[in-house]
Amino acid sequence: MAERIAIVGLGLIGTSLGLALKKARLPNVEIWGHDRDHQTATRALRRGAVDRIHINLIATVEKARLVVLATPVMAIQGVLEVIGPHLQKGTVVTDTASTKGVVLEWARRHLPEGVDFVGGHPLAGAGRSGPDAAEAGLFQGVTYCIVPSPGASEASVQTVVGLAETVGARPYFIDAAEHDSYVAAVSDLPTLLSIALVACTSSSPGWREISRMASANFRQASLLASSDPQVSRDACLANPTGIAHWLDQVIRQLYEIRQMVLEASRKGDGQALERAFAQAWEARARWEAGVVEEERRPHIPTASEGFLSFFLGERLARQVRQLQGRERDQGPRYDSRR
Amino acid sequence: MAERIAIVGLGLIGTSLGLALKKARLPNVEIWGHDRDHQTATRALRRGAVDRIHINLIATVEKARLVVLATPVMAIQGVLEVIGPHLQKGTVVTDTASTKGVVLEWARRHLPEGVDFVGGHPLAGAGRSGPDAAEAGLFQGVTYCIVPSPGASEASVQTVVGLAETVGARPYFIDAAEHDSYVAAVSDLPTLLSIALVACTSSSPGWREISRMASANFRQASLLASSDPQVSRDACLANPTGIAHWLDQVIRQLYEIRQMVLEASRKGDGQALERAFAQAWEARARWEAGVVEEERRPHIPTASEGFLSFFLGERLARQVRQLQGRERDQGPRYDSRR
Repeated sequence: MAERIAIVGLGLIGTSLGLALKKARLPNVEIWGHDRDHQTATRALRRGAVDRIHINLIATVEKARLVVLATPVMAIQGVLEVIGPHLQKGTVVTDTASTKGVVLEWARRHLPEGVDFVGGHPLAGAGRSGPDAAEAGLFQGVTYCIVPSPGASEASVQTVVGLAETVGARPYFIDAAEHDSYVAAVSDLPTLLSIALVACTSSSPGWREISRMASANFRQASLLASSDPQVSRDACLANPTGIAHWLDQVIRQLYEIRQMVLEASRKGDGQALERAFAQAWEARARWEAGVVEEERRPHIPTASEGFLSFFLGERLARQVRQLQGRERDQGPRYDSRR
Repeated sequence: MAERIAIVGLGLIGTSLGLALKKARLPNVEIWGHDRDHQTATRALRRGAVDRIHINLIATVEKARLVVLATPVMAIQGVLEVIGPHLQKGTVVTDTASTKGVVLEWARRHLPEGVDFVGGHPLAGAGRSGPDAAEAGLFQGVTYCIVPSPGASEASVQTVVGLAETVGARPYFIDAAEHDSYVAAVSDLPTLLSIALVACTSSSPGWREISRMASANFRQASLLASSDPQVSRDACLANPTGIAHWLDQVIRQLYEIRQMVLEASRKGDGQALERAFAQAWEARARWEAGVVEEERRPHIPTASEGFLSFFLGERLARQVRQLQGRERDQGPRYDSRR
């Protein structure tokens, strides 16, 4: 009898996982899918992401070898509560949510003995949603965070690592608390900054006139405010302390910039300001070029230079290439004499 | 004898202005160019943006009918001081800087009687720089702010309006103080938010690990931190109070979001949070669709629907199209039941 993989939640991530698994042509595996919204489930089936869909959640998962929860994060607790009593011993449960702390806690509470939970979070899919946007290649080369629950067996962990590798991603083991703090910093904080920008400008009495002046910079910086409000709300509910921590950090940083601007103006000297801006410029360039982890990747592969020029423009690419030969922590390398 | 237009500063904006003017084939006009950096000037000449370049600033402008200052904003004072005594009566001077208050003040101080200053600011060119990135179509359909100095004659104002229209832009009259406040809100503030994001994450002790988790959201939100640090510094020096004002607004907004996140978590109720996020979502969608100024433009032209779908995705485009029939100030229209 074929082994069953059950995917619960057939949005962008669930459907893309199905497509990637089907493409891998695993022998003796069948993929069942379920979505609360039957239309969504039907679209995923039509895309060929699952072998069959089932309208009943419990029937979908009860004989599965691996259950993948790809619902919005705040729906996971309810699903675990419903399916927990019906899972057979040896089933491995994983998820794809962007918060791991609460999910592990819910799994501890609702899954029975003999059913292991291994959290997962593929860093893919920002800015799109729904089964129609899904693609088999969505996880290709992508970091796939693996966060096993404390009691999970080595075999269960390997099952989820196998899932990540099968869909083309790179498994990355990380602690739940660190994961949640980091995601708050580089995923949720950007969205909240974008929302704050739109909120404070559009609620100003002059917005009708101000909006006429909004062009490329505003378009760029406000894009993440177009993220699904429910998804952003869920991210906040699932990780309030992590998010509050990073909001505090960025508020402190903005206040520091504010003081530097006024001080520079008072003194008629913009050097400290330019130095601070150049440091951010350089940190961003290093990140883009993948030279943050210098010990492991001291050189940018030559093949990536075309990529660099494409994304960064020639002047910046040249400067980033120059960074290759230099050591870390020497201070800013932005050349202010150019 | 041909009338001379002199362009001082042959970066992206100066060179693009030259290209657009040349393309318009104005009869009896010749365009002279100057750049502090001779290589830059040579590249602009080679692009065909000017009829000739001159290494001497004064020689470039002294017989010009119209002088366009397209240098970085903080260089304008020095240029005005040098050229002021050498301009002939009737010459019109304009600029392209993103701050108008200080520039008008410098013009008042350094330009002689009989030489009118009419400030200009085309809202174009974000994210690129240099003569090689210039293009004749850069100003096509773009808002071109016109800020006449108090004493400028109607004829001088019409000269700069003519410049804007000739290069394909839409002239927009605005007061200097309002202009500067609005630009701080929708152009400088986005850049500073992006810099603050990169600064506070990359200076964290965990940055090496955090940076591994940074993907599409971070890429998007950190892009403006790659803006030229000198340009950002100049923007701050030229308009410190406007920028400090908007930093205060966004800090207040971020603190409010922080409190809402903690409150939502305490109460286990994310409704207020979702409502706030949905409001920003909608303000952004309205801006993108051009329906902020409803009295003047109550309907989105049908021709733009393809554009909408392209930029916003089908679901959002559908919702924005629905906004057409509705009145303003009815509260959020984000459909939370979807």
